Amino acid sequence: MTVITKTIHLNTRGSADMVDITDQVVAAILESNFQSGIVTIFTPSSTSGLTTIEYEAGALSDLKRLFDEIVPQNKVYAHNEAWHDGNGHSHVRAALLGPALTVPFSERRLLLGTWQQIIFVDFDNRSRRRELILQMIGE
Amino acid sequence: MTVITKTIHLNTRGSADMVDITDQVVAAILESNFQSGIVTIFTPSSTSGLTTIEYEAGALSDLKRLFDEIVPQNKVYAHNEAWHDGNGHSHVRAALLGPALTVPFSERRLLLGTWQQIIFVDFDNRSRRRELILQMIGE
Amino acid sequence: MTVITKTIHLNTRGSADMVDITDQVVAAILESNFQSGIVTIFTPSSTSGLTTIEYEAGALSDLKRLFDEIVPQNKVYAHNEAWHDGNGHSHVRAALLGPALTVPFSERRLLLGTWQQIIFVDFDNRSRRRELILQMIGE
Repeated sequence: MTVITKTIHLNTRGSADMVDITDQVVAAILESNFQSGIVTIFTPSSTSGLTTIEYEAGALSDLKRLFDEIVPQNKVYAHNEAWHDGNGHSHVRAALLGPALTVPFSERRLLLGTWQQIIFVDFDNRSRRRELILQMIGE
Repeated sequence: MTVITKTIHLNTRGSADMVDITDQVVAAILESNFQSGIVTIFTPSSTSGLTTIEYEAGALSDLKRLFDEIVPQNKVYAHNEAWHDGNGHSHVRAALLGPALTVPFSERRLLLGTWQQIIFVDFDNRSRRRELILQMIGE
Repeated sequence: MTVITKTIHLNTRGSADMVDITDQVVAAILESNFQSGIVTIFTPSSTSGLTTIEYEAGALSDLKRLFDEIVPQNKVYAHNEAWHDGNGHSHVRAALLGPALTVPFSERRLLLGTWQQIIFVDFDNRSRRRELILQMIGE
C-alpha cells in the first residue's frame, strides 16, 4: 500500500464552466499500477469545486441554473465590498459544492456509473489556469 | 494496510427516498477485520447521493422539502427537453449533494455521532434497484 | 502505510458559527510524521458540517446568508414539531453541507490553496462543545 500524488492542469472559462476530468483520473490510476484503492481529487482553490454528473449539455445547464438561482452573481456580497474582485458569488458556490471528491477503484477500473462523469466546476468570474491534485492510495 | 471493496444492493422508491444504510456499513467494517481506517461509500449513479442525518421522520421530510424548494420537479429542465425521461431535477439534486461519503472508523467502530446515520438518497423519479460501493482502507 | 486517529475539541457559538481549523489539521499531520497521504476530517454530529473557504469576514457572512436564505431558521420544520428543540433548520443545513472533508498532503504539507482554509460550521441553535475526528492515512 502506498501513496502517489499527481497534479493536472486545466484551462477554464470561469462562470461555472464544467470540465469533464474523468479521462485524466482514469489515466492517473492506470499509470499508478495500483489494482484497487481510492483517488482523492482536490482543488486547491476557494472558487471552484468537484462533483459528478451525466456529462451532457442539458444536465450541465440545469446545474448551472441552480447556482444562478440560489447564489446569483448580480447581488451585493460582503466579499466584493471588501475586495472589489467581483467573485463573491464564486466563493459561496465553491464552499457549498466542496473542494474534494473521493472515488474508489478496483481491478484498475474507476467505479463510476455508466452515465456518470467527474466534473471540475470553475465558479470564478474569469478564465483561469487551474491545478488539481489527484492522490491515489492503493495497492 | 490493505483495501477491501464490497457492493451492497438496495431497493428504493425514488422521489428523494432516504434509506438508512448505517447497519450495512457497520457490518462491512466488522467483516473486514480492520481495526481502523476509512470506509468510502460511493453511488455509481448520477441521480442519487449520500450524506448523514438524524434518521427520524421529521428531519427526513425537512430535507426532502429543501430539495423540492430549490430544485423542484415540475419545472423546465434542459435535460428533460433532450432525453424526455423526466428526471432532470434528479440529476441536479444528485450533483449538489455528491456521490461519495468518507467515514473514519477506529477500534472497529464507525465514528458516527449518537444521533447520526448514513443515508442513501435516491433522487430518481421512479423505483430503482441500486448498487452501492463500500470500500474500506485500513489495518 | 498506517492509520492515525486523533480527536480535537472546539467551543462554538452555534448559528452557523464558522471556525478555521486549518492550524489544528496542519499540526496533526506534522505530529503524525507521515510524508504523504490523506486526512479525513469528520464531525460526529448531525447539526454541523465541513468545507473550505477563504477565511475572511465577507465570504463567511455571504455563505451564512445563503443558508439563511435557502434554509431559514424561522419556518415550520417537522423535526421541531416532533422534538421541540428548535434546530430543524440545523439538521437540514448540515445534511446539505456534509459531515466529512478529505484533504491530501504531500511532503508533510496540506495541499490547500493560498487563500483556502478548512472550516467547521456549527449550524446548531446554541453554543456547543464539539469533538472532531482527524484521521490520517499515509506513509
